[in-house]
Amino acid sequence: MVASEALSFTLSEIAARLGGDVLGDGEIRISRVSTLAAAGEGDITFLANRKYRAQLQTTRAAAVVLAPDAADAFAGARIVTANPYAYYARVATLLNPLNVGFSGVHASAVVDSPVPDSVAIAPHVCIGRNVVLGDDVVIHAGCVIGDGAQIGAGSILYPNVTIYHGCVLGERVIIHSGTVIGADGFGFAPEGKAWIKIPQIGVVRIGDDVEIGANTTVDRGALEDTVIGEGCKIDNLVQIAHNCRIGPYSVLAGCTGVAGSVTMGEHCIVGGAGMITGHLSLAAGTTISAGSLVMKSITEAGRYTGVFPLDTHEDWVRNAAHIRRLSKLADRVSELEKQLKENNTRD
Amino acid sequence: MVASEALSFTLSEIAARLGGDVLGDGEIRISRVSTLAAAGEGDITFLANRKYRAQLQTTRAAAVVLAPDAADAFAGARIVTANPYAYYARVATLLNPLNVGFSGVHASAVVDSPVPDSVAIAPHVCIGRNVVLGDDVVIHAGCVIGDGAQIGAGSILYPNVTIYHGCVLGERVIIHSGTVIGADGFGFAPEGKAWIKIPQIGVVRIGDDVEIGANTTVDRGALEDTVIGEGCKIDNLVQIAHNCRIGPYSVLAGCTGVAGSVTMGEHCIVGGAGMITGHLSLAAGTTISAGSLVMKSITEAGRYTGVFPLDTHEDWVRNAAHIRRLSKLADRVSELEKQLKENNTRD
Amino acid sequence: MVASEALSFTLSEIAARLGGDVLGDGEIRISRVSTLAAAGEGDITFLANRKYRAQLQTTRAAAVVLAPDAADAFAGARIVTANPYAYYARVATLLNPLNVGFSGVHASAVVDSPVPDSVAIAPHVCIGRNVVLGDDVVIHAGCVIGDGAQIGAGSILYPNVTIYHGCVLGERVIIHSGTVIGADGFGFAPEGKAWIKIPQIGVVRIGDDVEIGANTTVDRGALEDTVIGEGCKIDNLVQIAHNCRIGPYSVLAGCTGVAGSVTMGEHCIVGGAGMITGHLSLAAGTTISAGSLVMKSITEAGRYTGVFPLDTHEDWVRNAAHIRRLSKLADRVSELEKQLKENNTRD
Repeated sequence: MVASEALSFTLSEIAARLGGDVLGDGEIRISRVSTLAAAGEGDITFLANRKYRAQLQTTRAAAVVLAPDAADAFAGARIVTANPYAYYARVATLLNPLNVGFSGVHASAVVDSPVPDSVAIAPHVCIGRNVVLGDDVVIHAGCVIGDGAQIGAGSILYPNVTIYHGCVLGERVIIHSGTVIGADGFGFAPEGKAWIKIPQIGVVRIGDDVEIGANTTVDRGALEDTVIGEGCKIDNLVQIAHNCRIGPYSVLAGCTGVAGSVTMGEHCIVGGAGMITGHLSLAAGTTISAGSLVMKSITEAGRYTGVFPLDTHEDWVRNAAHIRRLSKLADRVSELEKQLKENNTRD
Repeated sequence: MVASEALSFTLSEIAARLGGDVLGDGEIRISRVSTLAAAGEGDITFLANRKYRAQLQTTRAAAVVLAPDAADAFAGARIVTANPYAYYARVATLLNPLNVGFSGVHASAVVDSPVPDSVAIAPHVCIGRNVVLGDDVVIHAGCVIGDGAQIGAGSILYPNVTIYHGCVLGERVIIHSGTVIGADGFGFAPEGKAWIKIPQIGVVRIGDDVEIGANTTVDRGALEDTVIGEGCKIDNLVQIAHNCRIGPYSVLAGCTGVAGSVTMGEHCIVGGAGMITGHLSLAAGTTISAGSLVMKSITEAGRYTGVFPLDTHEDWVRNAAHIRRLSKLADRVSELEKQLKENNTRD
Repeated sequence: MVASEALSFTLSEIAARLGGDVLGDGEIRISRVSTLAAAGEGDITFLANRKYRAQLQTTRAAAVVLAPDAADAFAGARIVTANPYAYYARVATLLNPLNVGFSGVHASAVVDSPVPDSVAIAPHVCIGRNVVLGDDVVIHAGCVIGDGAQIGAGSILYPNVTIYHGCVLGERVIIHSGTVIGADGFGFAPEGKAWIKIPQIGVVRIGDDVEIGANTTVDRGALEDTVIGEGCKIDNLVQIAHNCRIGPYSVLAGCTGVAGSVTMGEHCIVGGAGMITGHLSLAAGTTISAGSLVMKSITEAGRYTGVFPLDTHEDWVRNAAHIRRLSKLADRVSELEKQLKENNTRD
């Protein structure tokens, strides 16, 4: 398990590593990231959203990361850079390096494939035959890697992850605990009242730099593969069914479900608990709002929503009843329009 | 972990095992299943849906499985059978047999019950006391089986499955990774602001031929048992609460939630992210569309839906605002009808 | 794994331990809890809901727990107490004590921290460095506890739970199988089309007497901590994102999702599959109905709902189409009102 250690850098040292222009005292020492409101001595923070700009007057941060158009809005030590939020992410990583805390192959692990010396394999891991691990792969306790799986260099599997046989992970992939990659897709042929299982012969292919949260499931393909494009970020408790192709750099928030054979273009974003039904295509750049269900393919980028607005329960009862009569209400309005027109004509 | 091996059969050999009538070259050799569009040499495919019939003219498949009414629509080698899709499922299984890849009890497993010689128990499995395993049960790495649990012959548990004490699985049950059977149901008695835990004394009983996907949860009963009928197919990330009785051959797609004490008749189907609230009954043959929430019992078979239609975000904002005024809108229409009627009477 | 054993008490012995007034035969022996309808010899049951009162005439229970206002509605042996349901929960616990079934540290566990003699650690558990376990902590098979985590006295972790480094659990916390506490929050800074990971430096803090179901996920905080207040009860497959603060004694039913930085007051209740979007506050005492999505903060206690009413699929198609024209329908009604008013004025 990872744990962070105390580190510090001067502002100039940070800029030397990560770029950006230092204004003010470059020798000030930074050991922590924080928010404008909470920052104190030794803390670096950032301004990425105009609405927090007034906090620059009151923050007690040692230094602030700012965009060029806000460079003069803060008088203290600062770094000016085009994308302060991304810069902040990198400073935070610099100050909080991952400390894996173990190395080599633990004696209790059962490893049936040759692995590079640089890997770290924790207790009670089980690695099947013909598995290929890249350099510096980290596999935490209780993970199970099926026969023939491949995991690219620098990838990290947190405890109790399961990778089924034959699945392929790119480089620098991060998978959090309890996630299952490559279980059988949900495919059955009806025969009378029973369901005959259709073998799921494809695998899951995950691109470089993908991160997947905890207790998420990505099913193997039925005939072809399920594909997660490079740079995708997938949250906890997300279900991705067989044969899906998720476009590179897409983001799926928690509790999202993607049914079978969905194709999403590059940089799609699905809010929490969004649901995409089967065999649809989403154009690149599509955003689905949280809690919305998609029932038709989307051919044009943009934001789409379908959520019943929340109300007090009493008002909901009052209004929801009319949903079931909406078609009739529309008919009544049409009838009124017709009658009124007749009356007016008659007049 | 399973992995498939290359196998091949002549078309006549397939028909000898699985039935159906061979037309054309019965000696043609088949080694793979595929789709009409993607099939090539050595591949068998099928036609189950009229809309793909035109592809019979262009497919490069070695053989096609067809229903009698389409038997003449393809000139090449073919098998004619009443249910081509189910037949395809069986051919696919024949060509892709499960290769468990391990046998016996691994030295690292902790097994506190006698087990048949025919079982396969992988590393780091933990099996409690008084557990009964049927013949040929396969338990993958990291599974934990509680005291007194029973698992019927031919069942397969993929890695990191947990079966709580006393739960009973039928024969040929398949459970995918991360799934939890028999955790405590969610039962608490309010006392002031606190919640007093109610012991969950029932177990989970799962019928023969049930398949359950990855990271699904089926809670044990409070007093009586939670029951999953034979032949049910349950997808990933499904929640089945305590005391539910899911009728035989029902199908629950991914992300579905079934609250406590729900009774579903035979052959119910719930689409992805369907939700059934507590203490309801669903008639046999009920289908719930994806993303729909059921708040009342359903007494008549049929398909039921309740989904807010997706729209562009701007249009959604425009329309959704009126949901909160729908009751008033209906009142205004009634008032208009009344006035117009008065006017017309007066005229 | 736990398993219950047969125990019995006289009604007077029960009242001596749990309070309440015995009426009728205090020497009657009780060995099981049951429902009014199903109870038989040796069974105790309870009446908490008026609508089951008639069953008091027909129940074959050995004894019934009743509120004072129903004390005379049953002639047999009974216990009278202010809160029969909570009393029933305690009787059920008395008759079904948790039987952990193992003690000490199993030889296969990898434990890198000193632990009290009173803990029970099952096979294949992995406990990191600088972990602090309270007395009588029970950790079932396959759990993984990260460096520096703390688990309070009397807590129970069921099999295959993962606790990431540094997370803090209170006393008497129960966590069911497959649940993941402290995985990285979902935080990324956009840079071009890519997403830069923001280290998640906070931890998860869970109060005393919290119970969390199976396959649930609670993410660690980005900068500050994610906090679950004391006495909260959280069901299966619930997602709680980074930086959330869930008020004490709140209840989140299965499949609920709480997005990042949500603050919930004391004793909030979220029905199954409820969804709370990010950065909102919910007033103490807020109840969200099952399947409802919250998009704005709630400042007043009460019950809130937002669910599209279920209908037959055909009727849904007919009515749902009008949702997309609701704004225009409202405009048409306004136009009719205007015209009719003009007509009436003109008359």
